[in-house]
Amino acid sequence: MPKFPDFADRVNHVTGSVFEKFLPKMREKGDDLVKLHIGDSYLPPPYQLPIDPEFRDQFPGFNRYCNTYGISQLRSAVAEKVFSDNHLPVKKDNIMMTCGACNALYTSMLGLVDSREEVIVLTPAWPFFIGMVRMAGGNAIEIPFYTRLYDNPQLDIQDYLKRFITKKTVAMYLNTPNNPSGKVLTREQLQQIADFAKAHQLWVVSDEAYDGMTYDGHKHISIAELPGLFDQTLSIFTFSKVYMFAGLRLGYVAATRKVLQNLNKMMVHQLYSPATPSQYMMIEPVWTRREWSDKFVKHCHELRDIFTENLHVEHHVPEGAYYLFFSIKDYLKGSNYWEVIEALLDEGVSVAPGNDFGKDYVDYIRICFAGESPERLQIAVKRLNQILIG
Amino acid sequence: MPKFPDFADRVNHVTGSVFEKFLPKMREKGDDLVKLHIGDSYLPPPYQLPIDPEFRDQFPGFNRYCNTYGISQLRSAVAEKVFSDNHLPVKKDNIMMTCGACNALYTSMLGLVDSREEVIVLTPAWPFFIGMVRMAGGNAIEIPFYTRLYDNPQLDIQDYLKRFITKKTVAMYLNTPNNPSGKVLTREQLQQIADFAKAHQLWVVSDEAYDGMTYDGHKHISIAELPGLFDQTLSIFTFSKVYMFAGLRLGYVAATRKVLQNLNKMMVHQLYSPATPSQYMMIEPVWTRREWSDKFVKHCHELRDIFTENLHVEHHVPEGAYYLFFSIKDYLKGSNYWEVIEALLDEGVSVAPGNDFGKDYVDYIRICFAGESPERLQIAVKRLNQILIG
Repeated sequence: MPKFPDFADRVNHVTGSVFEKFLPKMREKGDDLVKLHIGDSYLPPPYQLPIDPEFRDQFPGFNRYCNTYGISQLRSAVAEKVFSDNHLPVKKDNIMMTCGACNALYTSMLGLVDSREEVIVLTPAWPFFIGMVRMAGGNAIEIPFYTRLYDNPQLDIQDYLKRFITKKTVAMYLNTPNNPSGKVLTREQLQQIADFAKAHQLWVVSDEAYDGMTYDGHKHISIAELPGLFDQTLSIFTFSKVYMFAGLRLGYVAATRKVLQNLNKMMVHQLYSPATPSQYMMIEPVWTRREWSDKFVKHCHELRDIFTENLHVEHHVPEGAYYLFFSIKDYLKGSNYWEVIEALLDEGVSVAPGNDFGKDYVDYIRICFAGESPERLQIAVKRLNQILIG
Repeated sequence: MPKFPDFADRVNHVTGSVFEKFLPKMREKGDDLVKLHIGDSYLPPPYQLPIDPEFRDQFPGFNRYCNTYGISQLRSAVAEKVFSDNHLPVKKDNIMMTCGACNALYTSMLGLVDSREEVIVLTPAWPFFIGMVRMAGGNAIEIPFYTRLYDNPQLDIQDYLKRFITKKTVAMYLNTPNNPSGKVLTREQLQQIADFAKAHQLWVVSDEAYDGMTYDGHKHISIAELPGLFDQTLSIFTFSKVYMFAGLRLGYVAATRKVLQNLNKMMVHQLYSPATPSQYMMIEPVWTRREWSDKFVKHCHELRDIFTENLHVEHHVPEGAYYLFFSIKDYLKGSNYWEVIEALLDEGVSVAPGNDFGKDYVDYIRICFAGESPERLQIAVKRLNQILIG
């Protein structure tokens, strides 16, 4: 059964924000309205806080609950960014802030997927996503994809994917630039995926966590930019990668107002909203992104080259994101996979096991080339070569 | 079927933190280990941040992912607080940080409740909780409770509750000090609830968001303090109320290690962890709580008295939390309920409709007496009297 434009049943079984129905009248009253309906205190916290006093004065509501879609100024800034940089037809009302891209992905599954429905997951994929499909009651259908495109850029994508469609398929999960493979999908590849999604009325969950992080002239394209695809796509972004603030747990969804209304019901029942001060803190960095982001991406490029130039294990050169993902099958030298992972740990290098990224990648490992200083990465490459090559 | 000590099926269908299995070995290696397994950047954000530079120097990992149970120093501080103030047998490992109490409650439902199972919800109750039960696939069984205790403090609680038990009952939701009624349960009342929960092997979800916020000598008691109840109770706290930082979206669960291991699986698939800087920010306030919290509670007491002394509508005097909850049935003067709510808005006072707090409270309203300044609360009381009394 084609699902789009329908949502998961659970969105009909819960209500949205308690006070939503009174909002228009409340806005009308303005400052004269004494708000007794919110459970919050009017005073700032009475203890010392390590926050710039100027910031606190500028945002006197920094300690209070905010709009469950996110604070207005950040949503405006982000809308401008998604409009200018990603070419999506969005305004402030098309943006909802979430607790990282992680929370946006989970919320999407809650909003779209009913029990026993299927979600196509192009793999290798970020480990927690498959669990999120299961949390919503669905089944993840893993399809080896990004690694195949390195080997065969001309793959007939529609022809390849259509064999996995069943009557229960309702959505597909896409991630470009891809974690862990580093593949960046081209416009032609995305167009084929878009045509496929349209043909089968699939919701498209587009994980764009590594938006802006591409190398060697590769360019990130948002699939929702393609003609006719915005309405059925949930485009998901984060402040964890190029903004280098994973600890902030802040991300967002760009989608139609209708999609966001349903996702917001799922949000308020999980955590109400992401943190208010975190949101205020990111307004300025969104507006100033062009002044600092290139420098970081260039640095990541240099970090990548430490590995691509010195690692003697066969691998594809990542086009984006900050990972290398490769099979170690030919480097086991008689040991089994897990013995080698342990040997790497004993040597002083921790890597992520391939199995976490999809059932077809049990002999792969993922390494992140941005989480340690260049000096320590150099040491890590030597250790990897030592164990895998000898 | 008695459920405790079993969990919801979904916890068996997802894995925990990807790297958990390697943690012991990784700890052993210490600083020599080059960590390539985490997807994060080693540098701090390159843009200006309104955070105290001393704080950033003290917590160089402020921008990075943290332990998904929460940062160690905060969990230690909180464990000491819950041990000293709430008398629960906890150490650091019995604490998991969440995105507000809201997120802890939702995560509890995910971890405990399977499709079509029943959760006893003592009402009036916080509006979103019933939706959370539904999000987990369960049914909320609403039982009018706190308001009854005002009328009949000697209510035979076990006798009253047992008629609502079915074969599908797996958990009960308790909230003292209660939002919205302001009721603070006594040790004797809690003991009856504890006996009832033990007799029926129910998980107890104890929402203690208003911990520490009591008046007139009433005292908050954590139900998990009662003999034999800690193992089957999830005690949930927040930084939104006495800590006056609702915008931080930070709370925590105190429970057995086994409970937390299962809840953590649900957490990492929703949002990974609450924000790292928010957590670092709250270490100091937890340790210094005795220096400032009494003053805030005393102020809330004064704010409460603005209403209890001047509002001419019949109501119970709240023993804790910061709400008044009362029926306006006798003050409708021929209008219907919603017309009066609208009239209050037109007069310049917003209140929360009783229906949101349980199906038995359709003619009640809730007002929060801490969200506006004393001057504005005085105005609000006059307006309430004007519309309701005339």
